Formats: sequence, C-alpha cells, structure tokens
Amino acid sequence: MVRLKIGFFGFGYVASTLTCGIERVKAGEIDLTGIPLENKIPGCNVEEIEVVCGFDVDKRKIGKNVSAFVNMYPELKQRGTFDNIKIHQGVNLNSTEGMPFEAEGIDDNNTLEDCAKIIVECIINDDLDCTIVVTATEEIYDVDSISALEAIIKEDKKDNITASMFYAYCAFVAAKKRGRGIVHINGIPSKIANSVVFSELAQKSGSVLIGDDISSGQSRLLSDLMEHYKEINRTILSAIGANWGGNMDFYRLQDEKRNESKKITKTGCAKDILGYDIPSDIKPHAYLSNLGDKKSIFMHFPMRLFNGAEDEIFICGRINDSPAAAGMLIDMSRLGALAISRDEFGVNATINSFYCKWFGKQHSKILAYQKLIEWVRK
Amino acid sequence: MVRLKIGFFGFGYVASTLTCGIERVKAGEIDLTGIPLENKIPGCNVEEIEVVCGFDVDKRKIGKNVSAFVNMYPELKQRGTFDNIKIHQGVNLNSTEGMPFEAEGIDDNNTLEDCAKIIVECIINDDLDCTIVVTATEEIYDVDSISALEAIIKEDKKDNITASMFYAYCAFVAAKKRGRGIVHINGIPSKIANSVVFSELAQKSGSVLIGDDISSGQSRLLSDLMEHYKEINRTILSAIGANWGGNMDFYRLQDEKRNESKKITKTGCAKDILGYDIPSDIKPHAYLSNLGDKKSIFMHFPMRLFNGAEDEIFICGRINDSPAAAGMLIDMSRLGALAISRDEFGVNATINSFYCKWFGKQHSKILAYQKLIEWVRK
Amino acid sequence: MVRLKIGFFGFGYVASTLTCGIERVKAGEIDLTGIPLENKIPGCNVEEIEVVCGFDVDKRKIGKNVSAFVNMYPELKQRGTFDNIKIHQGVNLNSTEGMPFEAEGIDDNNTLEDCAKIIVECIINDDLDCTIVVTATEEIYDVDSISALEAIIKEDKKDNITASMFYAYCAFVAAKKRGRGIVHINGIPSKIANSVVFSELAQKSGSVLIGDDISSGQSRLLSDLMEHYKEINRTILSAIGANWGGNMDFYRLQDEKRNESKKITKTGCAKDILGYDIPSDIKPHAYLSNLGDKKSIFMHFPMRLFNGAEDEIFICGRINDSPAAAGMLIDMSRLGALAISRDEFGVNATINSFYCKWFGKQHSKILAYQKLIEWVRK
Amino acid sequence: MVRLKIGFFGFGYVASTLTCGIERVKAGEIDLTGIPLENKIPGCNVEEIEVVCGFDVDKRKIGKNVSAFVNMYPELKQRGTFDNIKIHQGVNLNSTEGMPFEAEGIDDNNTLEDCAKIIVECIINDDLDCTIVVTATEEIYDVDSISALEAIIKEDKKDNITASMFYAYCAFVAAKKRGRGIVHINGIPSKIANSVVFSELAQKSGSVLIGDDISSGQSRLLSDLMEHYKEINRTILSAIGANWGGNMDFYRLQDEKRNESKKITKTGCAKDILGYDIPSDIKPHAYLSNLGDKKSIFMHFPMRLFNGAEDEIFICGRINDSPAAAGMLIDMSRLGALAISRDEFGVNATINSFYCKWFGKQHSKILAYQKLIEWVRK
Repeated sequence: MVRLKIGFFGFGYVASTLTCGIERVKAGEIDLTGIPLENKIPGCNVEEIEVVCGFDVDKRKIGKNVSAFVNMYPELKQRGTFDNIKIHQGVNLNSTEGMPFEAEGIDDNNTLEDCAKIIVECIINDDLDCTIVVTATEEIYDVDSISALEAIIKEDKKDNITASMFYAYCAFVAAKKRGRGIVHINGIPSKIANSVVFSELAQKSGSVLIGDDISSGQSRLLSDLMEHYKEINRTILSAIGANWGGNMDFYRLQDEKRNESKKITKTGCAKDILGYDIPSDIKPHAYLSNLGDKKSIFMHFPMRLFNGAEDEIFICGRINDSPAAAGMLIDMSRLGALAISRDEFGVNATINSFYCKWFGKQHSKILAYQKLIEWVRK
Repeated sequence: MVRLKIGFFGFGYVASTLTCGIERVKAGEIDLTGIPLENKIPGCNVEEIEVVCGFDVDKRKIGKNVSAFVNMYPELKQRGTFDNIKIHQGVNLNSTEGMPFEAEGIDDNNTLEDCAKIIVECIINDDLDCTIVVTATEEIYDVDSISALEAIIKEDKKDNITASMFYAYCAFVAAKKRGRGIVHINGIPSKIANSVVFSELAQKSGSVLIGDDISSGQSRLLSDLMEHYKEINRTILSAIGANWGGNMDFYRLQDEKRNESKKITKTGCAKDILGYDIPSDIKPHAYLSNLGDKKSIFMHFPMRLFNGAEDEIFICGRINDSPAAAGMLIDMSRLGALAISRDEFGVNATINSFYCKWFGKQHSKILAYQKLIEWVRK
Repeated sequence: MVRLKIGFFGFGYVASTLTCGIERVKAGEIDLTGIPLENKIPGCNVEEIEVVCGFDVDKRKIGKNVSAFVNMYPELKQRGTFDNIKIHQGVNLNSTEGMPFEAEGIDDNNTLEDCAKIIVECIINDDLDCTIVVTATEEIYDVDSISALEAIIKEDKKDNITASMFYAYCAFVAAKKRGRGIVHINGIPSKIANSVVFSELAQKSGSVLIGDDISSGQSRLLSDLMEHYKEINRTILSAIGANWGGNMDFYRLQDEKRNESKKITKTGCAKDILGYDIPSDIKPHAYLSNLGDKKSIFMHFPMRLFNGAEDEIFICGRINDSPAAAGMLIDMSRLGALAISRDEFGVNATINSFYCKWFGKQHSKILAYQKLIEWVRK
Repeated sequence: MVRLKIGFFGFGYVASTLTCGIERVKAGEIDLTGIPLENKIPGCNVEEIEVVCGFDVDKRKIGKNVSAFVNMYPELKQRGTFDNIKIHQGVNLNSTEGMPFEAEGIDDNNTLEDCAKIIVECIINDDLDCTIVVTATEEIYDVDSISALEAIIKEDKKDNITASMFYAYCAFVAAKKRGRGIVHINGIPSKIANSVVFSELAQKSGSVLIGDDISSGQSRLLSDLMEHYKEINRTILSAIGANWGGNMDFYRLQDEKRNESKKITKTGCAKDILGYDIPSDIKPHAYLSNLGDKKSIFMHFPMRLFNGAEDEIFICGRINDSPAAAGMLIDMSRLGALAISRDEFGVNATINSFYCKWFGKQHSKILAYQKLIEWVRK
C-alpha cells in the first residue's frame, strides 16, 4: 500500500468534507459508509489517502492552511488539525463572477502561459497523484484540437477557456513533464472527459481522466428508476426531477447560463435509458439559503401499464450533496490509480459510467456497477 | 406459433383484466405496454394467448360465462364478448371465510379425492396449457412429502390443505394423466414454488412451476431501491413500505393471519439485499374501499452516507395491482411454455427471480432481468 | 329566483367546465361538490345560472357555438347540446402571442374605440348579468386614472392596455349605458380589482368587481397552512410551492414575463400571513403537456419548533385547475349579484378575500370564510 | 408576575424537553418559537415557569434528581444543572407492563388509599401550581360517579383504575385539602377532561382541568386540512393519517389495547369536521427505534371536486413529538393559572379545543384559535 496524494482545484464544501471524513476514518470515528467500494480496491485503502493541497481564488482561503477556514462549514466535525494542507492561488477565468465572496486569481495579473507554469510547478512540487476539480459550475465551452487549446494558452485568450479546461490542461502537462501519470477527475458539469482533446492529453501523458460531473444523488436515482420501469415495460408519460439547495452550487445556478450545464448532464438520462423522449423538467430549481448542503428534492413519474391503466409515483426528501460526492471521489481517485498501475491510460469508461453523470449514452447505474466490479477484480 | 390456453383458479380482477387486455391487444386498441418482454419470447406472441376457463366459488360466477359478470369491474374496458369463457365451480377449503360474497365450493359436498377428480377432468377437457392461481391470500400451510400430501387427499383432511396447494396438486396430476406437461403459476403468497414437494410433482409430470406471489409493484421497487443504495454503500437506517387498497386482496388482509403471509414475502427483501437487518414496517396496512384496485403507497428510507451525514427519501403514489399482475402473468405463462419446449421441467429459478416476490434469497430485479434475458435468448 | 346570465371573456377549459358542469347539475347527474356555498346563497341557486355567450380570439371558436368545439376538452363529460351558446370575436391586444393556435382579434382591424363599441353592444344585447375574464395570463400593466384609461382608448394606444383591462372597461361602460350594474370577475393575475381605477368604474356604474386571480388550489392551501403554523408559533425556515401542468395556462407561462404575474400573486402570501420574510420558491415551474389540466404539485416547509428542534413536511399530489376554478366562479357570480341586490357596489373585499389570490394583505382562507358566511347571512 | 410551579406525572422525554427548554429560554439561548402564545398571556411569562418535581416508576429515576438521568435523551441540549428537581416514586397501576425498563410503583406495596396520601402530600409539600400527566398511553377506563371513584380507592380495586385517573384524583384532593386550586393537565389519551366525574372534582376544588391528549402534530394538521377542504365543499373520499416513531409512546403502542386509545382521539376528527363518515386509517403504525422522537408521517386524501373531477394530495415528513408537546404545555399551564385567577373553575372548553385532541365535537384548530385569543384578551 502506498500513499495517494490528492490536490483539489476549488477547496469548498466537497474538498473539506473529504478531508475531514478521511481523518475521522483514520481515527476510527466513522466507518466506510458512503464509500461504494470500501477497502476492496486493490492497491489503496481509504486510510492511505492524503489530502495535500488545494487551489482556490477565495481571498479568505488563498495562502492559508485548511485549519484556518474549515469552520466556514459548521456541519463538519473536524478531527485533528489541517495545518499542513495549504491553499495555493488558483485561476479565476471569470468563473467566479457573481459569487458572494471576493475572488482573486493568478490570471488577474498573469498570462495564461505564466499561470500554467505556476500551476504545473505546484502539482509537481506537491507530488500529486490525483487532482480533482470541484470548482463552481461554469458555462460549457468546447475546443476542437490540442493545437487549438495550446493556441488559446499561448495567445492568452482568456475568454475562450474555462477554469476546468485550464486545470485539466495543467494536470496533464505536469504529468508529462515529470514523466509520471496523474489521475485527473473533473467533478463539475463541463466537457472534459467527454472531450476527445482532453482524452488524448490524458493518454499521451500516461494519465487517467475521469468525469464529467459526479453522479451522487438524484440523477443517479433517476437513472436506476428509469431502468427499473423500462424492464417491466412501463410507458413513462413525463418526468419531473427538481431540487432546491443552499450551497454555493445552487447560488451559482441562479445564473441561467450555468444552469444550462446542469440540464445537459441531467435530462439526457431519461431518453438514453427509456429509448424514447418524454416531457420533462429535470434541473436544479432555486437557491434557498437555509437548506444548506442538504437539498430538498422532488420527482414525479406518471406512467402507463397494461390495459391502459395509469400509475404515478412521487418522491421527495432531503439529500446531502457534499458527503455523497466525497464518498464517490474517494473511490474514483483510487480506481484511477489502479488503472494507471495497469497501464490503462486515457478516459476510463467503466469508472465514468458508474460514478459520473455525463459520459456517452447513459444507462442504469446498477448495470454499470456489475461491469465496474468485474474490472476491479480482474 | 401456437395457441396458449390458460385457465384461472380464482377469476377475479386479475383474471378479468388479463382477459379484457388480451382482447384489446388483439383488436389493436392498446399496445404491449406493461408486458415486460412484449413479443420477444420465442414461440408465443401475446396475441396467441387464449383465456379458456376459470374456477371460482363466488355464487355470482359459478356456471356463468365471463360476459355475465365482468361488469363487476367497472374500470375495465370490455372489448367483444367473453361468452365462451366458462367458470367451473372451484374449491373453498375455508379460504373464503369472511369474504363479502356467498361462496360455494365443490368441497362443501365432496371428498378431497372426488374434488381432485373433478378439477383434473376439467383441466384435461379444456386442454389447458397453463393454470394460474390468483385466489385470495390464504394462511400459509406446509407439507413434508408427496406421500404426506397424497395422504391428506385420500384421508379427506380438509383442515390440512389450502386451496393453492390443492390446485397445484390437481394441475400436476392432470399433466401426468394426459402425458403432457403444464405451466402452473402460483400467483399468491403461499408456499408452492418454494416447496420441494410441489417442485418434485412438477418435475415428475414434465411441468413447470412458477411462483410464489407476483412481484409487480411496491415490493419490486423496494428491491431495486435497496440494490441502488447498497451499491453506493449507504447504511439504510429503517424502512417503511406501507400500502392501502380497496380490492379483495386488501379486504382479505383484514384477517391478521392472512396478513402474515404477505409480510413473509415482503420483509425478507431488505435484509437479503442489504446484508443486514433494519427496523422495518413493510406490509399492507388497511382496506379503504374507495381506493379500489389502485393502491395508495408510502415508503420511507432514512440512511447514513459519508462522514456521518444523513439523507432521507419518501415515496408516495398510486399504483394499480391487477393490470401490473396481468402484464407479468402474460410473460410467465409464455416463458413457462418455452421452458417446457426446452425440456426444462420443475421450478425455474430464472423466471421466478424476476417475476415473483418470494423465491430463495431475494435480490435486485434489475440483476435478475439480465439473467432472464440471457436465458430467453439462449 | 331569477336567471343569472353569464358571458366569458376567453372560452377555454374553465368556461367549458363550468358550462358542462352546470348542465350536469341541472340533469341531476352530479351533486354540488366543489361549489363552496352550494345553494345557500340567497337569491340564486346553481340551477339558475345560464351561460349565454363567450368572447374569444381562437379562430377555431370565433362565430361557432360551444357544441362545435367543446370536444377539444376530452375529459369533460358533455350533457345535452350547447348550440345556443355563441362565441363572439374578442380582442387580442398581443396577449395571445406564442399560443399554439391561430388568433384573430377584432383589434386587428379596428381602433380600440370601435372595439369597445362592439364588445359593449354584445354585453347589452346578450343581457349579461355577469362577465368573467378567464383569458390566458398576461404581463401586468397599470393605469393611473380613469381619464388616463379613457385617453388610451381614444388615442388607440394598443401597446398600453391589456385584454383584461379592456374587458373590465367594456363591462362597466355597458353597465352604465344600460343603467343596470354588472358583476365583473377578473379571474387572471392582472391588476383590476386591485386597481383604484377599475374599482371606481365599478362603483360609478352600479356594478361589482371581483378579483384578481382565482384562489382555487395550491396557493389557497399554502395560505391556510401558513396560518396553521403561525398559530402554534412555528418559525418557517423556507417555502417551496412548485407546480407543473399541461393546460394553456402553463403553456403560456413558458414566457418569462407572464410567469412574473403569477409570482406576484403567489409569493406575497407567506410573508403577509407569517409576518416575516423567508427564502421561497413559489411559482409554476414548467409546461409538461401530458399532465393536462391536472397539475403535479410539490410543497416543502422546514420549520423550527420549541427547544431548537426542526420539523419538515413535504406535500405532493395532483390537482385539477379548471373544475376548481369553475366551482369558485359559480359562487362568485351569485355573490356579486347578491351584492348588487344589496346596493353594495364596487370592489367587495369580503368576497375577494375568500375566493381570490390577490387582494390587499393576504390572510388565511379559513378566517376569510367566517367573514364571508356572516356577510351572506346578514 | 409570580412563579408557576410545575410537577410532572411521568418524567420522560416531554418533561425533560420542557425543563431543558425553559432554562435555555431563561439563558437567552433560544427564542419563544413553538410556544403558541409566547409572552402574551397575562400574569405569567415563560420565564416565570419553574419545574419543581416529577413522579415516575422507572427505577433509574426514582429518588434521583433530573441531572442524574437527563442524558438519557441525547438530543436535548442541557443548560445548567437540574439538581433541585427531584423524582418521587409514582404509581404503576399495571400501566408499565411490557416497557423496556424496570418499574417499581408505590402501589406495589401500598393500598390505593395510602398511595393517594403519599402523592397528595408531595403535591402540597412541593406547593405545585400545576400537575401534568405525560405517562405512557394506557388502556381507557371509565367511572360513573365521584362516589364510585372513591369506592375504588377505598376498596383498593387496583384493576379498576388507571394511573391517569389516580393522578387526577390526587391533584384535586390536594387542591381541596390545601384550600387552593390546581391546574391539572391530562396530556395522554385517557378519559379525564372528557369525564363528568373529574370535571366535577376540578370544579369543587377550585381547580382547572385541561385535556385530553395534546394536539401537537399530525392530528392538529389533519383537523385544519379537513376544515380547509370542507369550506370549498370538496368531498373527501378517504383519509390516511399514519405515523411511525421510535420513542416510548410508540414502543407502548405495540400493545394493541393501547393503540385503541390513540385511534379514538384521532379518527373522530375527520367525521366531526366534515359532517360525514369516510373510509380512514388514522393511527400510529409501528415502532421503529431509529426514528427516535422524530416521527415519520404520511397522509393521503383523494377528493372529488366540481364536475366529477378528482384531486389527491399526499403529505409526508418528519415531525418531533416532545418539543411540540412541551411548547403546548407551557401555554396550557399558564392559561390554566389565568382561568383560576378569573375564578373560572372546572373544565375549560376554550383552552381544550385549541390545545387538546379530544374534547367534545372536534373542529378546526384555526377557528378554536380565534376563540382562545378572545378569551385571553377579555
């Protein structure tokens, strides 16, 4: 067993939850509940994970260590100190506009090329095995080729690139430079693992790319419910999948353009699994501050069954965003390392299908699980 | 393609729905929604099914044809007439005590041996390929061996046998006598497919035995939800699966002893899938006449995830019992015939696992589906 | 008892439901369920109501009688014929932009002044006692004074007036001209009963003005729930009141500006009753065609109680829009006539408070009911 | 302002919550949320309340002070110490059979007459202004006259009397003996305030009797919802009001006879308010340990509206039992003292109607509130 060193791009609720939770596991305070594969992944147990650093643009965090600000998240039960986990300054790339804190990125005063140098150096210095993007949701951008991407950097076209694209680029450049692959996880709904450009960069640097967007809650449930009803040949008549929350992700979605990204990763699911299109409203609905990280969810499916009869079910409840995502990331980082150890570079469809929302044609998570287990055991 | 001739033991809502629905399919009025395998079962399409007769103890039905009483179920849309489908008198065996109609069984005036002769003759005369038990839920009885069962019949010990046991016995005796196997489906929560005695009788008569209890609605959903949460390693803290309905099945369950049978087929599921026991209340709750065949359901699962956080979901809705069961039975009867054509006699675990509630260790329906599909295609 | 002659501005689902329902009541087919005051309003029983005509801009309806198009609403059970109920051409005033039918208004080829003459003449000729606006939701406009309103008409400023304003104006002009008051009900969320201008026009013409927007379903329930929790001094932490539907009202709300009108009439409620502001998302959410007139609703209220404990309730279900509104309108039209008979002209706060969403400071419907009953009985 | 000294018969979760909460209010840690009338009751503010003693049969509590065992309820946030609040030994009267703790009552070794002397002396010595019964739910008993009750005591017929009857008797004997009335609140579903016998005892001793059973959660909501729908003349077709919990009240209800008491106080409501009977299932359903004091609830109401249309709503959620009850009791104790100060002795219908489940014909709580406010202000 070896250490697995993780760095976060965006050190908010998800990163803090993962950091605190890992320490509580090590201290025997909590069990492995919520970590799908527990300690069944060859090569790396949960206790081997070490959070090493973060990159952020929130002025309250830059240059600080995690102990200094983790109490911003009062629900977390802190165990021990996090004095050694340092927050480097990250890039802004306009992604923090409208957020309720003061943001300052290295891109404010540096060219993209210089920014890349700084980030790459940090990754190499901190000897990161895995980098995870959990910044706020951004508008979706695309790029056609590696050379087009490199041109954007070289020509400093900051309007043509998003933070998640930039961070993925840096991770793979660092991997190549040091001659050792990296696990890069894009945890937000942007087009990285779904982009041939970044897939190629991962491949060429002996790295593994996982994404896009973590499938941890309602959309995951939706996909398994659609599979459930498809198998008994129900005709789903419409689908509502609404949610309301009070964390920064919801705060951010008040901006319509960003909400579009979420819709893309969410609505495809029903059609992909059912095989036909239905009237649907599947997306985050509003920011309600008091709900915090624990979303209020609602789902509704009217459906037709044999002989023209109609059933309908309603689902509601409260579900936590960040601990669900953290549990998934603990698996993804270790599975990525396992893939590298097996010389399976690039995008790993088996991992993506189970843990991520958006990757190719969507299908039931229960089926993806069977393939994942097989791959792990092989 | 050949005809598949079906006879029902208990000609109530389920049998009437199946009968009406099949005719509407033939007339092109409705599609195959709600029939899981549609017309993908080799050897028999839905249109080849023919409902030939029924056996019942309700005085309003005995000796009548189905046209004469099908309007008891106003929700059904009748298409054509059912003048040729005749209702024979069935056995009572105390199973109708407390039901809101006058019951008269052939066992009121005949020994069990004579009753068996009468039923066996009907099965042979009507040339049935498939017999389906959808009588009201009864108290669960058990028997140790074929010889013990035969002794009960010979010695006319009516208190030691239930209607579903007696009907299964008759079906296999008829199969043996005519030298051609039968598909026998036990659609109620009694121990038939789960009994080695009846399994052996099926085997020896070149027949197929399917059961017990049809998994068509809430318990089916429960099993897939448990699998869903198990795979992401949530710790389920408790489980409520309650339902209320207004059909005869609920009327019957007002009798506590019969409710026990339902509990057995339902509560095992959570433990079998999750691998640990939880506080739970999973059973039918009350008869509310106005709800008719469309149950009101409620489910609640609080659960723990990573870092001690807790989610909870509530599910509610309205779901139809009889059309759901009818769609499943249309598959089971054809799959049973397919098994016979492949010389696979006795209890068929692959079919049972997907369509029935109670058979061995329970597991997710989505996984059972994968095995079923493989078996159908082989 | 005398006849009460009603004309509808906008002859869609609500008008058709009211028309069909009244005939079924007269035929003894249905009881008075859903009509709050049943036959307890002095002067006019439900059976005395007569739907006389409608005004619409849908080309499929103009110039036709109701029998010719009522089958557009398949859920309605038609009883007898509606050959005598004629649809006059109404005004457009851009209110039908983007609707899924071809619209043609008299305002397409006439000045506002000429349009007014035509509508007023129809009202007088058809001898209407009550006019009801149930056109699609429009953007909210306002006007400062009667003279300003008259100037808009005279100067043909079609961009400064909405259909609901224009219809209210015509109703009161007709009342004045014929020397007999009219009951005018504004059933949509525009500012008519809440406008001093239209209130004054009602008063001066011996008429009664009721509105704005019918409180028939979810917002009504919301107001009584807020009162319920206020009385036991709970602190409501946030409020979700979401709904999805498939009728023209939802189709229309896909236009953001119109959705604004709905939000105004809905969100005020929580604050008015509770006395403090809370994070809330209370509005129609999306058009899902298959839901038809029967909305899917969701509500969520987390709240604090004694000693820092927190409760939360979720409400979901399916509720019909048009029959709920029709039952309310049957009362409002008769209560308006009662007010006129008592020489109580203008806006009637007692009626508005119970039946409408938007009138002054909002309060619990249960309390408004007590005042209404007193007023009816006096 | 004067002190209001309270003693509890049964010092479990409700008493502990009230005790802790009052101290937190005094310390300014929490506001008056959940106490319906806050500090608007003349004569006694919340801060004036003092919990003085309790009576219990749980061996872990008898003779201890509250500090010694309050940590049995980990959800409570304790503030300060409760060393001065002493637990006297109470009576058993078979009411604790089957509870999960060792019980020892003074009735185990004493006659009823001696027990009464002991309890009466405690009440007088501790100078209690208010006694509150919050023991576990018991089977309902009745008695015909004061003399019959006195005969039971004298003849030591322990099988003919329940704990709540005995405690009420003692409270009024103490009041008479010391020549100063007492407020006695029966917080459980037994027949005390609804009994003419105890009403007369209260009257004759210058006391006030409040009860029976605290209406704090689901049944309270049910009554206001029934009123809501009655006022718009909906026809409710059936009613489900189910709940599941993990506190001692639910533990106790596993005994069928005790569940009967709950049904009586709960099901009457729908009929009393609606004016007609409906199929219903309104009662606690099962004990699920993990739910603790925070019940899981479910309600379902299908209903008919105008023109034969049907709506249905489902309500689910989590609600706390003890803090809700505690908030109500804080009002009731002060309102009882107010009644005594106004020389209004005996049963107070105005207080009972708003705070209790079971008193005479049931009606909407919102209406009861109006009368209560009037009475308080007079």
